[in-house]
Amino acid sequence: MKYETILQEIYIELKSLSITGNLTTSIPELSKVNPDKFGMHISTIDGQDFGIGDSNEKFSIQSVSKALTVALAFSFLDEEIWKRVGVEPSGSSFNSLIQLEYELGIPRNPFINAGAIVIADMLVTHLENPKQDFLDFIRMISGSPTIDFNLKVAQSEKDTRFRNAALTNFLKSFGNIHNDVETVLDFYFHQCSVEMTCKELAHSFFFFANEGKTKAGVQVLTQSQVKRLNALMQTCGFYDESGEFTYRVGLPGKSGIGGGIAALFPKNFVVATWSPRLNKKGNSELGMNALELLTTKTGMSVF
Amino acid sequence: MKYETILQEIYIELKSLSITGNLTTSIPELSKVNPDKFGMHISTIDGQDFGIGDSNEKFSIQSVSKALTVALAFSFLDEEIWKRVGVEPSGSSFNSLIQLEYELGIPRNPFINAGAIVIADMLVTHLENPKQDFLDFIRMISGSPTIDFNLKVAQSEKDTRFRNAALTNFLKSFGNIHNDVETVLDFYFHQCSVEMTCKELAHSFFFFANEGKTKAGVQVLTQSQVKRLNALMQTCGFYDESGEFTYRVGLPGKSGIGGGIAALFPKNFVVATWSPRLNKKGNSELGMNALELLTTKTGMSVF
Amino acid sequence: MKYETILQEIYIELKSLSITGNLTTSIPELSKVNPDKFGMHISTIDGQDFGIGDSNEKFSIQSVSKALTVALAFSFLDEEIWKRVGVEPSGSSFNSLIQLEYELGIPRNPFINAGAIVIADMLVTHLENPKQDFLDFIRMISGSPTIDFNLKVAQSEKDTRFRNAALTNFLKSFGNIHNDVETVLDFYFHQCSVEMTCKELAHSFFFFANEGKTKAGVQVLTQSQVKRLNALMQTCGFYDESGEFTYRVGLPGKSGIGGGIAALFPKNFVVATWSPRLNKKGNSELGMNALELLTTKTGMSVF
Amino acid sequence: MKYETILQEIYIELKSLSITGNLTTSIPELSKVNPDKFGMHISTIDGQDFGIGDSNEKFSIQSVSKALTVALAFSFLDEEIWKRVGVEPSGSSFNSLIQLEYELGIPRNPFINAGAIVIADMLVTHLENPKQDFLDFIRMISGSPTIDFNLKVAQSEKDTRFRNAALTNFLKSFGNIHNDVETVLDFYFHQCSVEMTCKELAHSFFFFANEGKTKAGVQVLTQSQVKRLNALMQTCGFYDESGEFTYRVGLPGKSGIGGGIAALFPKNFVVATWSPRLNKKGNSELGMNALELLTTKTGMSVF
Repeated sequence: MKYETILQEIYIELKSLSITGNLTTSIPELSKVNPDKFGMHISTIDGQDFGIGDSNEKFSIQSVSKALTVALAFSFLDEEIWKRVGVEPSGSSFNSLIQLEYELGIPRNPFINAGAIVIADMLVTHLENPKQDFLDFIRMISGSPTIDFNLKVAQSEKDTRFRNAALTNFLKSFGNIHNDVETVLDFYFHQCSVEMTCKELAHSFFFFANEGKTKAGVQVLTQSQVKRLNALMQTCGFYDESGEFTYRVGLPGKSGIGGGIAALFPKNFVVATWSPRLNKKGNSELGMNALELLTTKTGMSVF
Repeated sequence: MKYETILQEIYIELKSLSITGNLTTSIPELSKVNPDKFGMHISTIDGQDFGIGDSNEKFSIQSVSKALTVALAFSFLDEEIWKRVGVEPSGSSFNSLIQLEYELGIPRNPFINAGAIVIADMLVTHLENPKQDFLDFIRMISGSPTIDFNLKVAQSEKDTRFRNAALTNFLKSFGNIHNDVETVLDFYFHQCSVEMTCKELAHSFFFFANEGKTKAGVQVLTQSQVKRLNALMQTCGFYDESGEFTYRVGLPGKSGIGGGIAALFPKNFVVATWSPRLNKKGNSELGMNALELLTTKTGMSVF
Repeated sequence: MKYETILQEIYIELKSLSITGNLTTSIPELSKVNPDKFGMHISTIDGQDFGIGDSNEKFSIQSVSKALTVALAFSFLDEEIWKRVGVEPSGSSFNSLIQLEYELGIPRNPFINAGAIVIADMLVTHLENPKQDFLDFIRMISGSPTIDFNLKVAQSEKDTRFRNAALTNFLKSFGNIHNDVETVLDFYFHQCSVEMTCKELAHSFFFFANEGKTKAGVQVLTQSQVKRLNALMQTCGFYDESGEFTYRVGLPGKSGIGGGIAALFPKNFVVATWSPRLNKKGNSELGMNALELLTTKTGMSVF
Repeated sequence: MKYETILQEIYIELKSLSITGNLTTSIPELSKVNPDKFGMHISTIDGQDFGIGDSNEKFSIQSVSKALTVALAFSFLDEEIWKRVGVEPSGSSFNSLIQLEYELGIPRNPFINAGAIVIADMLVTHLENPKQDFLDFIRMISGSPTIDFNLKVAQSEKDTRFRNAALTNFLKSFGNIHNDVETVLDFYFHQCSVEMTCKELAHSFFFFANEGKTKAGVQVLTQSQVKRLNALMQTCGFYDESGEFTYRVGLPGKSGIGGGIAALFPKNFVVATWSPRLNKKGNSELGMNALELLTTKTGMSVF
């Protein structure tokens, strides 16, 4: 069966689901989004591209960006980054401070907020113009020079920053933030505010499925490095629902509270979904269903 | 390169590693084992079998058995089992009681002790002769009618049972154990005492890699069911080192404090290793290195 | 104002309170009690005795007994007992296992279940006939030779023992139980099943207020020892409501889920109350109100 | 025996103790203090005043100030303050964030950092010129118009503010800080930087022992209110060593990491000690010993 047909089937089946989730309330600017948006885009390694629904509409990628910042940090620091952040599932909420206290400021993994903030701190240290350089990086890997921050969203995150400010100060009290708290948070809020379409997001993640090479052929990471980051997305990409996503979908991926998910089948395809209604764990309810249908219908999962 | 050559290379490379781990001390009977034993066996879906080192020597599979009991329970209860046990990584030690208190007696997953004890309780309820029926099941899936419990080891576990007795009583206080505490523990200690060779262990896990069918062709679980259990082994098979194993090895697997590990590459091969020296997280130090070398040399990982 | 008048006033004021608490459900035998019972008895150091309501009716003292077992253990082990149990408030529920895991089997204090079970283990070790010797001790300090265990209650606790069995096994896994789990639990369930009237309970606690001497003049503990146990009751006597009790009542005391409370004003009086309706923290709702009224009306609190 | 003689005896006995504690390292400015300083001052309700050692030398009262801010807040908000902070011992370290996460931003009590920061927020809301008004208050209650902030210490706390900034942001994320994080922290750092001599500190706490009236006769709190705050100091005044202090000393009190302790025997005396070497829990090692000797020698404790 062709991917085009499969996406159309999924689209129809999803319409019959009764969805109970709501928009995130944690960032006021994001609660203005139409909750009933749904888009899905698949890009295969052999060059096919199919989208459906609102797949060409921009949305806030939020924490999906954490996979991209860790990839960028990994590209110049390699295994060094694991001195300051772990590779284990956290077993707790995305913004929990509890483990951090028991584990003396070393976040469990780079996909929970604490870990992503440590990665942000690494980028602030290593990049000359951190925000611009990160923007250039994602424009390059996605092949979309128009991708940009949404400054209203970044500001909205800053205005409601208290939990993330708590995390960053807490990390700094353990010596695991090297730059100013404000500078790191500013970078982090901008990184989360990036907007992409499903198509752009799928293209941004292309190198994870393509042994480290972007759609345009740029080698961003080695084959071994992407394998490791894919492994990490598998165990940690969905906060305390990572096990559930792995169990139901069986693909490495990363979610965001804007309702986006990027997932991939190594050497085969990348897929991005967007639907802003979230389940209790903060992951896109329709997105998870769409991806479960995809692996069920194609029989393509890593397991 | 042939698997035979790869195993020989791994065997040689491992000899040059300096290993610092020790035998488990939690079960006196297991501390009598020669700590320098090492065996490895690979079985491919297309019928090849290669072993090296002490791969034909029996050892105590311990918690590796948890993958087999959950498979057996899954075969007759299917998704029902998730009402009493979760599918999320625990982020804590194999015998922790903490999460159980916060989460009111529902263990995070079936591969930590609490979860395996709940699965044992299900088997005690559903099997006519629980211990014998489980033995028959593993003899059948492995094709080795001589596989048996080691009664001395079972007795040794019983003698030092206090942590597991605490877990079982705690679970029962939440209503998540339906049979007598003693009966469930008796089954659990026997299950853990099972002895196999690396070859037998690889054959026992064959159906996980072979879309649910044993080496002899018996359909134990559906293709969809083994995918799900493989996903679960990926995120939860190595206690609070599951992320590390996934990151370094990239294969679903299950470890035991007897020093055994079973891992698999779906539709390709099953591999079992045995080396009793454990790292701080309770997983076989050499075994993890051997499997990392295997996926590095073959380039075969799920990611 | 005379104590007799004060008790009568309290009795009348309590009738106008709307009480929402219920009987404990954790021990079936205790849920057969008439929930509307209320008794109160005060014994002054200078020899006065006043009771009101159901103050001469027997009830299950349950955890109030923990103050008596720790006194008995303290009388022959003195400061040695703090090697195996702490003197700090736990900040958590009476039957929590969490701190025990973090703190490697040393209970926070002797008034939470874990701590009382360690004290029970000490008594089992040191007493020739533990149950009988403990009974003799409380008959002696109270001057009531008819005080006895309620064997139905002890059996009921045994039948629903799982949480306490979990605690005891957990403690033993850390080496902090020296006798058989069953033997220790048997002692503990009997200790909790002791029945007294308010008057008997007040007399049992007389030595805490009387510089270590019972009403009959027997020196059970030194003056310094009772000061220390009184201090401990002040900070830890009411589980995670110890601060609230100290704040509202300002007297050292100990509560039980049978609805009893014993409290005392050193060198002045001992008071016992009984009302089986419990608040959310497991303490007698009317009892706490009665004692708050007592200290408000008399102006007698340690602060 | 006279207090003067007792203090001299204590002074001599303390010299023979081998003290292993060190200065706090958390605030650089405080680590410049001479670690071997020791002062002690007692003020009796009947008007006697005795000091010994360095009792007339100024030191940083740090967290001892928390008893004074809560008294000030209590004086105009009364029981209202318990809507935003509890009265229970925390059972954990003074700067822990863990309980705050489980308990949704309501600190356990006003004597741990989180609770004191909430109290600081109340004062910032209710006082016209918060810092000056607080200064005026402590000058009034102590009768010492020269008491002041140490601006270098306040700045040093600001420079190493990360843990407290984490706490304040965390509290604000739960809605339990009403003012700007910076404003609240500024007040809090100034409050902690207050310097007093032992004599001034004893006089500041005089009203706690004198039924709410200062040495000069000003009624700061009602008799009932001071009883309640004394009760709170008893259960919570020494962080996770409150039980130990109550057990050994048996007086309500409050400690600070500057090495100061204020304690009191209601209706009898107030005592202040200063010795900057801290034990592992962050309380003055010599100070606790001095106070234990005091209650042993006088036989005066609340129990």
